[in-house]
Amino acid sequence: MRNKLNIGLFGFGCVGNGLYDVLNKSNLLDARISKIVVKSPNKPRSIGAENFSYDKNDILHNDEINVVVELIDDAKAAFEIVSEALSRKKHVVTANKKMLAENLDTLLDLAKENNVSLLYEASVGGSIPIIRNLEEYYNNDSLSGVLGIVNGTTNYILTQTNYGKDYETALKEATELGFAESDPTLDVDAYDSKFKLLILIKHAFGLTLTPEQIFNYGIRNIKAQDVKYASEKGYRLKLFSRGQRVGNKLVGFVAPHFITEDNVAYNVNNEFNSVTVEALFSDKQLFQGKGAGAYPTASAVLSDISALQFEYAYEYKKTASSEKPEFTTDSILKIYAGAEKTNDLEVFQWIEKEEIFQGKDYAYITGTINLNNIKDIDFNKKSEVFFAVLP
Amino acid sequence: MRNKLNIGLFGFGCVGNGLYDVLNKSNLLDARISKIVVKSPNKPRSIGAENFSYDKNDILHNDEINVVVELIDDAKAAFEIVSEALSRKKHVVTANKKMLAENLDTLLDLAKENNVSLLYEASVGGSIPIIRNLEEYYNNDSLSGVLGIVNGTTNYILTQTNYGKDYETALKEATELGFAESDPTLDVDAYDSKFKLLILIKHAFGLTLTPEQIFNYGIRNIKAQDVKYASEKGYRLKLFSRGQRVGNKLVGFVAPHFITEDNVAYNVNNEFNSVTVEALFSDKQLFQGKGAGAYPTASAVLSDISALQFEYAYEYKKTASSEKPEFTTDSILKIYAGAEKTNDLEVFQWIEKEEIFQGKDYAYITGTINLNNIKDIDFNKKSEVFFAVLP
Repeated sequence: MRNKLNIGLFGFGCVGNGLYDVLNKSNLLDARISKIVVKSPNKPRSIGAENFSYDKNDILHNDEINVVVELIDDAKAAFEIVSEALSRKKHVVTANKKMLAENLDTLLDLAKENNVSLLYEASVGGSIPIIRNLEEYYNNDSLSGVLGIVNGTTNYILTQTNYGKDYETALKEATELGFAESDPTLDVDAYDSKFKLLILIKHAFGLTLTPEQIFNYGIRNIKAQDVKYASEKGYRLKLFSRGQRVGNKLVGFVAPHFITEDNVAYNVNNEFNSVTVEALFSDKQLFQGKGAGAYPTASAVLSDISALQFEYAYEYKKTASSEKPEFTTDSILKIYAGAEKTNDLEVFQWIEKEEIFQGKDYAYITGTINLNNIKDIDFNKKSEVFFAVLP
Repeated sequence: MRNKLNIGLFGFGCVGNGLYDVLNKSNLLDARISKIVVKSPNKPRSIGAENFSYDKNDILHNDEINVVVELIDDAKAAFEIVSEALSRKKHVVTANKKMLAENLDTLLDLAKENNVSLLYEASVGGSIPIIRNLEEYYNNDSLSGVLGIVNGTTNYILTQTNYGKDYETALKEATELGFAESDPTLDVDAYDSKFKLLILIKHAFGLTLTPEQIFNYGIRNIKAQDVKYASEKGYRLKLFSRGQRVGNKLVGFVAPHFITEDNVAYNVNNEFNSVTVEALFSDKQLFQGKGAGAYPTASAVLSDISALQFEYAYEYKKTASSEKPEFTTDSILKIYAGAEKTNDLEVFQWIEKEEIFQGKDYAYITGTINLNNIKDIDFNKKSEVFFAVLP
């Protein structure tokens, strides 16, 4: 019943190394890594040089290899590898959310044409089996929302600011702890969270969006006064990747949210990730686990490899559904926005203002806005304001 | 591709009623309830009497009905209905954990012989898709532990005692809120949690146990001094249904546990349920959702019905695995035990005592014991002592 898996591995960082140890040094799965392709011949590695190759064709042109596991950083190079592997009828397991988000339908079409599986549980939420659950368990049209904390770096920083640290200190800590990259733009400006939301939306609601369609606003511009506001109200600040169905419309965006204690994600702190799933007829379910790091990622990759033994493939049932919602950015949001000068807050084109506060050196407004009116502004670059969605 | 489902429903409480509304008043699934069998003709009901029958054979002997949804309280009557339905080649969806726990292999054999599905996601953790995840996602032998808070009544009571209420007040509240039954024995003495653990262990580790094999100790005997001890140490008290693999052995039991803030279940409060899954190579994943009540249960039943459209059946891959662990009760536990008289604490046959406290009217001991030495004692009936496993 089980397929014998002969794996070609691209990339040998922490995740690849751990995966090698589990697959080749235990009998957990009937799967072996028989070839590893890496970029640099000169890095010190835990296993002998004879295991490595520097030519991708040693895997791609090897007919005995039936599974490619792609664990490299570069999304462009990854796309070339993955699309050629699929064309050559090899199953692919990948964690590369940027590559997936930028090329989703192309890759799915390739996998379908060649009758092979493309699995990517590790691309969203680390060890949390969220894609599989959206795909298999919530397989009718009953989903009304997904709400993800899917970036460990920003959740770490926000948690620490909740504890009273300023943004710069928390970011520095996150970098020292290895959560944040040396250029943290993808994390703190919420691009990483956006790529992941795009994948979640595909499996939750059946829509393929492009990264350009999804508004993303991160946490770079948070100031001490915003943190103080949150703490006075008993709010915590979370960066949510949010897809919400309202009737036959779907609203999807990434932005900071103030949440109260009754939100099930209130205690998802530091590097933890979570996805809250709202389904018709049920209360919210929270899936929580570590999102960053070698082990959580390797765990998800391992589960995908294990599923390939049983010829598992995503079916994208919701993509085929006639009840699929239509994507919209026409959505009223209740927000808090703070800046030194009240004037800077007029950028939001308020529909209705609820509270207006003007202090000596800080001002804020709460009220309602329409996402449509701000979606083309890159707020990550507007350092003079910070805003967050209110509960 | 999808099977047309023609459903016979047993029981029309809140869950059955909600299910009827969703299936028969929307087009969410290609599934209709065509017959409902209930016990009493005289209860007022939300739909006309012409929809009901009082003879189980109106469903069981009806060849056009291909799915039986069983939602009655009585485990014995449920077993008769479910086993006859399976014998007559009808798929069955049930939430009856007691029936399942007491007859698991008999029912699985019947389903297999007749080539039909027996699905029961709603039997453990309400709306949390834990069985499906253990079955499908964690399908290799990499699981090391499951740790469930799977009884909403006791979790509500324990949460309230953490907040300073005494046991009797909290139980009264739970009853008033509709969480606890008028006879709360199954809940507070951890039988319900035990039935659920038995089902979790089947899907996590492949073993069929009997209820008699699993030690269950509930929360009936908790006293103010025990709560005070917990609160002084920063512990919270949770009733855990616990299955832990150590090498090729499996330890499984239900007992109160003191846990610290670093336990991911620390913030699973009130009527919420959760299951923490520990897998090789990954950190812990927490699945959280509402465990009690009509909607969470109906949600899980609905997902099972939806899965039947695609001919889904549990495969019990781990039951067939040669790497299955062996069940044991030979396990060293570190516990806290309190009583008015130190003498009463000698029942635990301490291997090593760490702390001995003797106050004016209360005494406690912490230290290590062997589960083997206490497993045949019904501690639910020993009101003079209370114990909990320490972190």
